[in-house]
Amino acid sequence: MDSSLFIGVDIGGTHLRTALVDETGQIHHRTRTTTGIEAGPDAVLERLAAACRDLMKLAEADHKHVHAIGLGVAGKIDRIDGSVVFSPHLQPLNGYPLARNLVQTLGLPVVMENDCNAFGLGEAWKGSGQGIENWVGLTLGTGVGGVLILSGQLWTGDNLGFEAEIGHMIVDPHGPPCACGLRGCLEAHASASALCNGVKRAVQTGTLESGPLFDLLRSGQLTSESVYRCARSGESLATALFQRMGWALGLALASLFTVLGIRHAVIGGGVSHAWDQFIDPLWKTLRQSSSMLDAETAVIRRAKLGDDAAPLGAAYLAFSESRR
Amino acid sequence: MDSSLFIGVDIGGTHLRTALVDETGQIHHRTRTTTGIEAGPDAVLERLAAACRDLMKLAEADHKHVHAIGLGVAGKIDRIDGSVVFSPHLQPLNGYPLARNLVQTLGLPVVMENDCNAFGLGEAWKGSGQGIENWVGLTLGTGVGGVLILSGQLWTGDNLGFEAEIGHMIVDPHGPPCACGLRGCLEAHASASALCNGVKRAVQTGTLESGPLFDLLRSGQLTSESVYRCARSGESLATALFQRMGWALGLALASLFTVLGIRHAVIGGGVSHAWDQFIDPLWKTLRQSSSMLDAETAVIRRAKLGDDAAPLGAAYLAFSESRR
Repeated sequence: MDSSLFIGVDIGGTHLRTALVDETGQIHHRTRTTTGIEAGPDAVLERLAAACRDLMKLAEADHKHVHAIGLGVAGKIDRIDGSVVFSPHLQPLNGYPLARNLVQTLGLPVVMENDCNAFGLGEAWKGSGQGIENWVGLTLGTGVGGVLILSGQLWTGDNLGFEAEIGHMIVDPHGPPCACGLRGCLEAHASASALCNGVKRAVQTGTLESGPLFDLLRSGQLTSESVYRCARSGESLATALFQRMGWALGLALASLFTVLGIRHAVIGGGVSHAWDQFIDPLWKTLRQSSSMLDAETAVIRRAKLGDDAAPLGAAYLAFSESRR
Repeated sequence: MDSSLFIGVDIGGTHLRTALVDETGQIHHRTRTTTGIEAGPDAVLERLAAACRDLMKLAEADHKHVHAIGLGVAGKIDRIDGSVVFSPHLQPLNGYPLARNLVQTLGLPVVMENDCNAFGLGEAWKGSGQGIENWVGLTLGTGVGGVLILSGQLWTGDNLGFEAEIGHMIVDPHGPPCACGLRGCLEAHASASALCNGVKRAVQTGTLESGPLFDLLRSGQLTSESVYRCARSGESLATALFQRMGWALGLALASLFTVLGIRHAVIGGGVSHAWDQFIDPLWKTLRQSSSMLDAETAVIRRAKLGDDAAPLGAAYLAFSESRR
């Protein structure tokens, strides 16, 4: 039995998650800490290196050896240079050579990917994407991330530093404003931000003047989870916001399936826990908006690895790079 | 010097175009006749076989040999079965085993592709797509066709019988009706039909009550070329229709570049002759709607092979299949 192990790390705006993974995709150990971005990039590097050293010791105690490290980082990354180009939620890391510095600190090979691509690689390896040749992945969180697995490989396009930015596909040019500065992006309809902004706009325009969502907004406690709970209890604005989310997801997937000639999608991320609130309008719109594909043959799967997907995918990347 | 030649055929709703092509992509001879679809599928096969036999004789007279034939057919095709699944402009061919029957008639290998994919292969081989690894192609005609060249190869997705149907990407869910039954497809904004339908709607709704476009419609002489001529002379509705075309093309390309992480497009087809009328609004919208890509690095090329693109691409397919 091979004694090689790999470390996968998911570096998000809030949490830093690691996994110690073998070549079969089994997770031997996982850790979670805060990213601590407020202390600056060198502090993040130290925290990251400390987490990796802990896992390396655990591997040694088990007479195994960590072969390489994979990082999934929320943002635009430069694979060749090993640096973070731009991360909206980890802005102090912008321009910081995180992967390169980790190589120097630990003396191990380090590869870096966008966190949503890491999610896709994880789900492709051991999750809902297993055995599917071509699929589109979405992570519904604060924003909407995307990943494309084409011909069984992670699609990286022209290596422009972004790809599969499905959250910024424009589904409705007359739609609500998006954090990116445009209008009507998928993210402006189908993210935690979109849900909260929908409530804010209803209050601002006077269409919502009372009720639980109004109170939550006023007390600063409005979250996508609270919008979900309101939708479950039948509150009309919350229900309408999830209907709109499902509509936008159905529209985006219909166009993607038409353009790519494919029929599989995997949806994950924190907001995907509200599955029961958006999946029916998603399917309704997908059926109505598919001119080429027989929508009944489409497969929309829920991601199944949860928070393990990105660290696992990052470890897979380290594993596959080390075999090249 | 190799004496192998290949025949490429473009079978459209009106014309049947052939090209006798060598392995370097040089066209030795070309023919054009009407498809004659009104006489039924067997008559189309005969006409096709006759055109191929003529080219085979020309090849023999030159001491060369036709090795294989490639067909580009306007419609949904079954590559494996060698049959036409559904062709809106060649409906008598629906379900007809055109490629299989041509094999039996001529005793040569025959491969079949969608005509827009053949266009893409032709432009990739000898036209505006040469040397570009990843690009999206559009043909603006009666409808809007699409093709994707990814990693230097024709993208065929899950082999569902369609792919790169960019004309049926929904750019505006509140937009005008499309021939496919949906609303707001790219084709409903950026095709010859969209131009003519725009004039019809303006007359129906009473916003156009006189002028050259009104007269052309009434006399049954309205064509996309006449809308173009009116736009060139400054007619406001014609200008607005081309502005809308450019806007929709810019929006579709912005979303495609965002989703695929690529930056090259090639635009051909009869309506692309109206380039001067839609290219400025296309660029304006592309710049305004690109959140990830620096739009200044985008490259939008005009197809350069004209009617030769599809026969050449079909011949390329025959050539590349014969080498496998």
